[in-house]
Amino acid sequence: MSVADKPRRGRGRPSGGSGGEDTAALIVGAARAEFAAQGYDGASMRGIARAAGVDPALVHHYFKGKEALFVAAMQLPFNPADVLPTVLAGAAGPDEVADRMIRFIFSIWRDADTRAPFLGLLRSATNSEIGAEMMRSFISTALFARVAEHLPPAPDLGLRINLAAAHIVGVALMRYVVRVEPLASAPEDEVIARVTPAIRGYFSGAGPG
Amino acid sequence: MSVADKPRRGRGRPSGGSGGEDTAALIVGAARAEFAAQGYDGASMRGIARAAGVDPALVHHYFKGKEALFVAAMQLPFNPADVLPTVLAGAAGPDEVADRMIRFIFSIWRDADTRAPFLGLLRSATNSEIGAEMMRSFISTALFARVAEHLPPAPDLGLRINLAAAHIVGVALMRYVVRVEPLASAPEDEVIARVTPAIRGYFSGAGPG
Repeated sequence: MSVADKPRRGRGRPSGGSGGEDTAALIVGAARAEFAAQGYDGASMRGIARAAGVDPALVHHYFKGKEALFVAAMQLPFNPADVLPTVLAGAAGPDEVADRMIRFIFSIWRDADTRAPFLGLLRSATNSEIGAEMMRSFISTALFARVAEHLPPAPDLGLRINLAAAHIVGVALMRYVVRVEPLASAPEDEVIARVTPAIRGYFSGAGPG
Repeated sequence: MSVADKPRRGRGRPSGGSGGEDTAALIVGAARAEFAAQGYDGASMRGIARAAGVDPALVHHYFKGKEALFVAAMQLPFNPADVLPTVLAGAAGPDEVADRMIRFIFSIWRDADTRAPFLGLLRSATNSEIGAEMMRSFISTALFARVAEHLPPAPDLGLRINLAAAHIVGVALMRYVVRVEPLASAPEDEVIARVTPAIRGYFSGAGPG
């Protein structure tokens, strides 16, 4: 899973001279304000261009879409659109999707630098309704919908992905941030082995008994 | 589980005249500062008395122990020492402990007033190392150790309780605070039915496959 450990920053933004950097920074600043004010769903590339005082075409020149702009605005270490397809490529079924997602999420939360922006998002979401709104639809559309593409379609698939993600992130939070014992000191392979049955259960759709 | 929905505040503190209230408030203020500075393990009834400038016997007069003082300092809506034995009384085995804990934790997080102080603790824990330290040993000693008393002893019991709690709290956070869909709008009974197998698995100690 080393592909996911240290993804590069700034995907979707072509490297350029300092003029380009200034323009990109201006757009990112406007985007941050728009996402905070409107939420992820409410913000638009056009509205962000207006707030930045630039032509919408320029926003599209620097950022391939709203998701890439959100990733830049929140300083996330990677764009899920770039990384998740690699993480999940060729997974042979729900069990393998489960195993890869557990290791991928742990790899993000294990490292203080990589988890910091995600922890920042989670803090925003727990501090205010607008913070929650900002995060809510991003994780649904950018993260969960992309995991769903690798699982058999089912009416309850969205709910099962929510529960699996809540479980993995809950464990990562208690292990790496709150550092509750004995969870914090348990070997990672043991923790992974113990959460795997529950996550496979959610991803495979084996319903409650 | 209605017993847990709206527990009374201020247990362990006898009602008294305004002089007593002032003294109690003084002690609680000192306790808050001591817990923030020393963490739950590092703070002591004696140190809190010293910080408040009162006799240790007076602290013991108002609060039956460090846990009751922490509950008052963090403005938690109840003392786990009072409530958990009632919630878990007579549970017929690990499955019933699992079922009761899920409903109990959901009942706390469902209501904005009841969850606010717990969300505050979680925010502290994610904002700083000292915040994490403050919460960490309280939840281990006041919450998890008390759940463990109702489950068959085993070397890995502590780890399994950590994982179960991380799962339930992760789901409560995503459902009631971040309000990710479809989890936020799913009927509570359906969500409970879906997380029950995983939590029963942790509490019963059915190891990973």
